[in-house]
Order: sequence, then C-alpha cells, then structure tokens
Amino acid sequence: MPVPADAPFLRACRAEPGPTVPVWFMRQAGRSLPEYREVRGEGSILDAIRIPDLATEITLQPVRRYGVDAAVLYSDIVTPVAAIGFGVDITPGVGPVVERPFASAADLERLRPLEPEVDLPYVLETVGNLVHELDEVPLVGFAGAPFTVASYLVEGAPTRTWTKTKALMHTDPGLWEALVDRLADQALASLRAQVGAGASAVQLFDSWAGALTPSDYERFALPASTKVLEGVADLGVPRVHFGVATGELLPLMQQAGADVVGVDWRVPLDAARARLAPDTVLQGNLDPALVVAGWEPTAEGARDVLRRNDGHPGHIFNLGHGVLPETDPEVLERLVELVHDEGRADAQPSLLGAEAPS
Amino acid sequence: MPVPADAPFLRACRAEPGPTVPVWFMRQAGRSLPEYREVRGEGSILDAIRIPDLATEITLQPVRRYGVDAAVLYSDIVTPVAAIGFGVDITPGVGPVVERPFASAADLERLRPLEPEVDLPYVLETVGNLVHELDEVPLVGFAGAPFTVASYLVEGAPTRTWTKTKALMHTDPGLWEALVDRLADQALASLRAQVGAGASAVQLFDSWAGALTPSDYERFALPASTKVLEGVADLGVPRVHFGVATGELLPLMQQAGADVVGVDWRVPLDAARARLAPDTVLQGNLDPALVVAGWEPTAEGARDVLRRNDGHPGHIFNLGHGVLPETDPEVLERLVELVHDEGRADAQPSLLGAEAPS
Repeated sequence: MPVPADAPFLRACRAEPGPTVPVWFMRQAGRSLPEYREVRGEGSILDAIRIPDLATEITLQPVRRYGVDAAVLYSDIVTPVAAIGFGVDITPGVGPVVERPFASAADLERLRPLEPEVDLPYVLETVGNLVHELDEVPLVGFAGAPFTVASYLVEGAPTRTWTKTKALMHTDPGLWEALVDRLADQALASLRAQVGAGASAVQLFDSWAGALTPSDYERFALPASTKVLEGVADLGVPRVHFGVATGELLPLMQQAGADVVGVDWRVPLDAARARLAPDTVLQGNLDPALVVAGWEPTAEGARDVLRRNDGHPGHIFNLGHGVLPETDPEVLERLVELVHDEGRADAQPSLLGAEAPS
Repeated sequence: MPVPADAPFLRACRAEPGPTVPVWFMRQAGRSLPEYREVRGEGSILDAIRIPDLATEITLQPVRRYGVDAAVLYSDIVTPVAAIGFGVDITPGVGPVVERPFASAADLERLRPLEPEVDLPYVLETVGNLVHELDEVPLVGFAGAPFTVASYLVEGAPTRTWTKTKALMHTDPGLWEALVDRLADQALASLRAQVGAGASAVQLFDSWAGALTPSDYERFALPASTKVLEGVADLGVPRVHFGVATGELLPLMQQAGADVVGVDWRVPLDAARARLAPDTVLQGNLDPALVVAGWEPTAEGARDVLRRNDGHPGHIFNLGHGVLPETDPEVLERLVELVHDEGRADAQPSLLGAEAPS
C-alpha cells in the first residue's frame, strides 16, 4: 500500500493541521539499539550499507520499536563519493577519513558523475524493500550537502576549525565551485534515484554549514545546495534542509529551496520561526544530550519544544542532531508517546478552550 | 608609567570615540609565533606558566610584533583547578585531560578554595612583571567561566557532545550548582588577584557555553558566571564575556554583568548588536580560519567586520576565536595595520564626509 498523502509526517511538511505531531529521530537507526548491535557486527558502515537485507532491517528497527512517523534510510552522506572510488572510509569513533584528500584541480578527475543505478544499486534495492515493508510510513531519503561533503574530502578527517576547507574556498574559488558543483550533481542524482525508488521525502544534511559566516555560506555553500534542492522540486516530495549551529543561516537555508527547515537545539523554535516566514515548517529540536540524561529532562525539554512551537501545524518533532550512541531506547520510546499524546492538543489549539479548566 | 585611562582599548570598552579602533587577538601569544616556539620548548603549557620570566616574555612577544592595543596574559583557563591539585593536564593537540573526572559529591572536596597568593604566586608575579614592561598597553587578565571549566572536569577530556556534563546538571542540579559555585569562587579569586596585581581588564572565557540551549544556559551557567562578573564590578575594570556559537545567548551573557560582549564569527556584528542594547560594546569577530587562508581573505573579512560595526565607538576588533597555530604572523601584522588605518575613519563617522570623494 502506498504512503497516504495524509500521513502525519507529510501533512506537517505542508503545514496542514493533523491528528498528531509527527516525530522521527535523526540517526534513529544505529548504535543506541541493541537489535542494531546484534545484526550489525564489526566493520565499516559503508560495508553494511552494501547489503540491502541488512540495511533494510536496520532502517526498520526503530520504526517497529518506537512507532515513529517516518523512517530514515540507513546510509551515510559519504556513500556516493565512496561508491565512485574517491577513497573514503568511516573509522568507528572518528568519522569519515579520506586516503588522499582533495587538494588540486587534478583531484576533480577523481569525482566522476554518479550513476545511481550502476554505482549504488544496493541503496536503491534497500529503498525498494523499505517502501514495500513500511507500508503507510514515509521513508526519508537523504544526501550530504556539497559544502559538508567537500569539507570531508578537503580536510581528510574530522576537523574543529575547517581551516583547509575555508582556505580552499577563499584562495581558489573557481576550484571550490567546481568541487561543490560536482558534489551537487552527485547529491541530486542520488536523491532523484531514491525518490524514483519510492522515498516519500528527502533531507539534505549540511551538518557543518554552521562553521561558516552567513556571507561565506551565501557565497560558497548556498549555490550548490540550491542546485540540489531546486533540482528535486519537480518530484513533488518535501525537502528538509538541516545543519548544526545554523542560527544565523536559517533564512538562507530556507531560500535554498527547503520546504522544511531543520533546527538544532541551540535555537529555540520560536526564535527560529521569528527569523523566517511565519508559515515556515520546522523540524526539531530537542537537545540529544537531554535524552541521554534520562526521562525527566527529556520530558521537560520536549514539552518546552512543543510549547515554543505553540500549536503551529508546520512542526515535525525531532532531536536537534542525531541520536547519541549512549541513548537508552526506552527514553526515546516514551518520548514518541509524549509527543503523540501531548503534541496533539498542541496541534489543535481550537480544542484547547474546551479542555481547559474554567 | 600606568596605563592611561584614554588608552584606545579602554576607551572602546566605555564606548567612547577614540583615534583608532583597538585590536588584539585571543591566543595572540602562542604556537603561531616563531619566537614563541623558540623559547617555549616541549612540555605542558601549565609548566611554562609557572615560570614568570618565560610567561612574561611570551605575553610580550605579540605586543612587540603586532603593536596590538592589549596584551593577554599567557595562561590557561584550567590554571586554577590544576594549581589546587585536581589533577588536570593539557595534552598538546588534545586539550585539557583530567585524571579522575568529577563524578560525585565526594569530588567537591578536591575543589578547595583558591588562594591566589599561595596557589598562583607565579601568575601574580607574571602580571606584576608585565604591568611594568607593558607601560601604556593594558593587560587583559582572564579566567574560565564555571560552566566551561566544569565541563572539562566532568567529561575528563574534550568532547563534542557534552553528554556527561548535561546529564549531571539535569539529574543532580544540586551537585552541579555546588560544582559551578566553587568554580565561580575560584575564578573570582583569580580575577581579583590579577586586577590587584595590575591587570587593566578581565575576560571571562565561557568557550563552550554555546553547547547549551538558552534555557539551560540561564539555569545552569548564568548564575555562576554572574557571581564572577558581578564580583569584580567594584574593581572598576572592563569585563569582557566571550564564548563560541553563542548567537542565542548574547543577551544573557550581557546580563551576567559584561561591559563588553565577545562575539564569535558566526554572528555578524550588526546582527549581534540588533539582539542587544544599541550602546553595547562588542569584541570580535573575524573568522580565524580566514587569517590562515591568507591576506586577501583576511582583508576582505576585516573590512566586512568594520563595515558591520558601522562606526560604533564600542568596538574592539578581535578574531571570532583564538589565533590558529597555522597562522602566518605577517598576516596578523598587516591586519593590525588595516584595522588601525581603516577602522579610524570608521570610528569617526563625522570625518567621513570630509574625506569622501565628492
């Protein structure tokens, strides 16, 4: 059965009032789940992604356990560059590590166009499996935004300063533009193929965009991200755009072609919406560390998020970044219940008067 | 000769128009300078700090080379907790590492009150030396804010998620408050002693405050930082308050008792001032990675900072975070010249009409 157009997640993406506040969690599939650790074994996530039955199972696990309103494909933002042989791997506990970082025009040749059916057949098979298994639950496909993927390729390893990346964009803007343009084409091809295989929505992860000043973001990141988001506009699926520490970038990230703006935990939802058009759909934004702290801080924080959203129908509840590995799944399970139970009243302010004590 | 009250840095702290826009750089003394690497040798920074002649020389090096408008004491925010024997060291390339992290009420006993004259005589000797050597250049003393120092003690090592710290504050707020209260007393004692020895201004570094939501900052960090800043109010020296990724926290950080609000590079100065009282004095905020990228990006970025300050007399030029080790000192040298030359016109908008081409 196809995903109904009035699935809570899809309604919220259109800012249509629904019976519940939809909720899913970035990185909901992963190390926090015992059933994940059981099936996953050792080895790189990039190897696990290449096994459709495994990636399907891992994607489904949190949907079964939590009853979330969306599934998110078990994959990684470096999957496309790894698939075309750029020499990227993900070191557990470290992150993406690049054998020969991107440093000069000659490295552009190592970034040929992505052909999803040829380069990522296993991803498309996983998406196909999932669409069948998920039934009425929407699947969120995703890609890494050109800036963030480029920063991995240029730095070679996780960084706290993005020094090489910023040096490249400022000292050789032509080369930088060529780099992010190729990565934009890859992200676009990947997202189109995921939607073609049945994904109901897409999210562009620009995880580290918040490292940039607004003017650098506008000049060096926005054009390529716009190419990706505008390039899927004709597919008619909601486009979510997310990064961390992006308080000053939210209007630009919306302008890139986002239907839904993801907000990290640093910016209260009311402050975020005040910087954007009033009808903006927001996704977020409970601090993932609160969930690790336990149920009471989680419940308190979640109620604060709902209160700051103030019943706006354009709200998809999520964490402000990915689920942390130390998370107790039972807390997330109760969190989904809380959002569904208490968010409902919030999403239908017209009912509040009748329910309030006189 | 004492520092004159009309030193450019001190005038700007009072938002008084001056002949130049003052400039200094966080971490201006350090690995980016060849003369630093020459005198510094191997070993922990905490050992170097214990040698007043060495710490004095290192503090003076950037003042000599760059002609900056303030010196900043060569020390570290964990100096006080290390001095009372909490078991903290700074691992090169990693950061503060704690042998036995803070985990329970019993650990409070390891945080006895700081007696600066007994515990940090070498720091006070360095300050005394510097005041003599610096002549008319103000010395900025500093301390780590209770939240940031506590996060080092609780995590035991640098973190990207502050999971243990946030868990402690939410699950045992009483213990958390006792912890940051002790650290506030230490910071206060250290700052008062530094001013007593001759420092002309103080900066409270809450480097990682931006990891907190505004409501968590208000509840768990603001009271202790207020205790520190209000506790030096009677000394009559300007109080600077700085952290990274604090766009949403700026009004609270000002409210804590700051005369000058430090701004990281993510928030343009005009956006920062729009969130604060119009007469607010700001310090910042060129992206330190631009300086590594070279002179052209540095000049362009510096002019953008000056333009966004729009001639406001309450502006101290600085980077948005510390000088990166890869920085070429010649670029910083030219940057000081640019700010002094071009910021001057900016700081005296009344002169602009006469100087502008007709």
